[in-house]
Amino acid sequence: MRSSLTGDSGLLPDFGVVAGVDIGGSNLRIGLADLHGGVLERWNTSTKGTSSPDDVITLIKQGIEQLLQQTCCSQRSLLSVAAGAPGVTNSQTGIVLATSFLKGWKDVPLRQLLESALGVPAAVENDVRMAALGEHWMGAARGVDDFVFLAIGTGIAAGVFANGKLVHGSQWTAGEVGYMHVPHTRAEPARPGEPGALETALAGDGIGRQWSKLCADNARAENLTATEIFARAGSGDPLAKTVLDHAAELLACTVYNISLVLNSAMFVLGGGIGINVSLCDATKRVLEERYNEPTRPNIIISSLGSDAQLLGAIQLALMTANSPSKVDPESQKALFL
Amino acid sequence: MRSSLTGDSGLLPDFGVVAGVDIGGSNLRIGLADLHGGVLERWNTSTKGTSSPDDVITLIKQGIEQLLQQTCCSQRSLLSVAAGAPGVTNSQTGIVLATSFLKGWKDVPLRQLLESALGVPAAVENDVRMAALGEHWMGAARGVDDFVFLAIGTGIAAGVFANGKLVHGSQWTAGEVGYMHVPHTRAEPARPGEPGALETALAGDGIGRQWSKLCADNARAENLTATEIFARAGSGDPLAKTVLDHAAELLACTVYNISLVLNSAMFVLGGGIGINVSLCDATKRVLEERYNEPTRPNIIISSLGSDAQLLGAIQLALMTANSPSKVDPESQKALFL
Repeated sequence: MRSSLTGDSGLLPDFGVVAGVDIGGSNLRIGLADLHGGVLERWNTSTKGTSSPDDVITLIKQGIEQLLQQTCCSQRSLLSVAAGAPGVTNSQTGIVLATSFLKGWKDVPLRQLLESALGVPAAVENDVRMAALGEHWMGAARGVDDFVFLAIGTGIAAGVFANGKLVHGSQWTAGEVGYMHVPHTRAEPARPGEPGALETALAGDGIGRQWSKLCADNARAENLTATEIFARAGSGDPLAKTVLDHAAELLACTVYNISLVLNSAMFVLGGGIGINVSLCDATKRVLEERYNEPTRPNIIISSLGSDAQLLGAIQLALMTANSPSKVDPESQKALFL
Repeated sequence: MRSSLTGDSGLLPDFGVVAGVDIGGSNLRIGLADLHGGVLERWNTSTKGTSSPDDVITLIKQGIEQLLQQTCCSQRSLLSVAAGAPGVTNSQTGIVLATSFLKGWKDVPLRQLLESALGVPAAVENDVRMAALGEHWMGAARGVDDFVFLAIGTGIAAGVFANGKLVHGSQWTAGEVGYMHVPHTRAEPARPGEPGALETALAGDGIGRQWSKLCADNARAENLTATEIFARAGSGDPLAKTVLDHAAELLACTVYNISLVLNSAMFVLGGGIGINVSLCDATKRVLEERYNEPTRPNIIISSLGSDAQLLGAIQLALMTANSPSKVDPESQKALFL
């Protein structure tokens, strides 16, 4: 299955294709795949300045039409579509309840909009859970029934698999671990719409802020990204090492705490900061030294990288195409429960 | 169903009975139930001084025989048995991997021992997960698909339901949240066989130790239990209030952190300390004031109290009796996955 990812366009296009959509805060990516999950062609565009639901739907329709033309597939060969949205998403009703990106969507009936625009069954899911689906399907967690995909980038969130199924929670907010309080996170409670305690320290520009503060305290002045700071730590810069060690402490404690709840076999790290090898190695050391009872959590960097969400969307589109009752909301629920 | 709990012994005893067993560190409790789950009769004894697996099996056999006689049921009317064990339990193979109570069981094939001794299909489960089963069946979490049963007594552990199923984890240790690190728990890592960071502060004699230290610091000397200290806090004792507020802070942060992972609809508090109303009320206040974004966890005291585990065992015994392939290990797995 993995080999067909490279674009083996000879695989079953006559029998139908599906589209996986990755709606991001700044980019929109679409992959057209055959019924084996092989990606036939990709299409990308920016969502900057075009963030309303109708604009995004129009872009998705344009992208899919272009992909169908490029792969010589007819409009009728499209069997289904699935889209990952960057916010709280009710995958049962297909409604995006809230996003902090895209200028703050509220109660957007994304599945219905996709079905009306494209005339095929659609499914929607939160973006981080979609990435977890991708990692479970053909990534680092392939075949692993209990694992956590932990995305650390602009924010922090988790996609949780337990008993081989995605966990959504009672209000579709399972995995909002960026709000966790662990030793050395700020004491102040979270405010609506603002980053959580863990995010403030470990994600977004939190690493950069710590670096700038340390530099100022030590009469230095350098603006660096998290990646650059972690690279400096590897070169022996003591201030950079302080920042890396602190980030590793926070991440190790977070992984440990989640592991105590779920006893997950694996934590797959994704996102711009999560995939940093220096951070992963430093976190592993803390886990081995300090957080190894009663079980030692196993962390690994995402093998799909930025493709995890797109591939998860393709898998969900394939499940939607194969679902007996294609546009019945209950059938969407059955995919997960 | 609930009304038959009071012991309506006229319900279907001719068609068979099941036995639920609660193996505790110091007590063994057995309930004999009809096929509607109505408890016909109960039997209790001490496990002090008789902690080997063989001794416990002998006691269980004696207890069940006595219960069958008391209820005028024949030996053949017993259809199944299920037992909760106070330790890490593989409910698929029926092996108790490790306990800290009962002088430390290691790899005890409890299901097989029960089946050999009683001649009926058996099932085993970790005690806290068994209590969660009970609460889900006919307690505070009846019909709730996503909830956490949090037992706070000698130690701290959780029974996690997600998507309507118990979460066991990859090594059967899901729910060992007594090891969590939250702000104000000790910094030292856990050592094998010793209490975790959260347990040290919030469970066992941790509350009493804090009280004694505060008393010593303030030139007072009183030995009180956690329940007595929390009652004193209600009467306005400032030192007792300090202890209660600290416990509520720790518990609120723990509930919040778990809630961020799972977005559980409900946290059911059980165990000797967990069922304390003053602690529950103080914790609710902290949750409302500080830990209310992005979702506010809902906590409630167990409605079954010390019966939760026994009733969970009866439900598991009923599921075992109704299982098509009664002693096939795979069928045990199918009960949960």
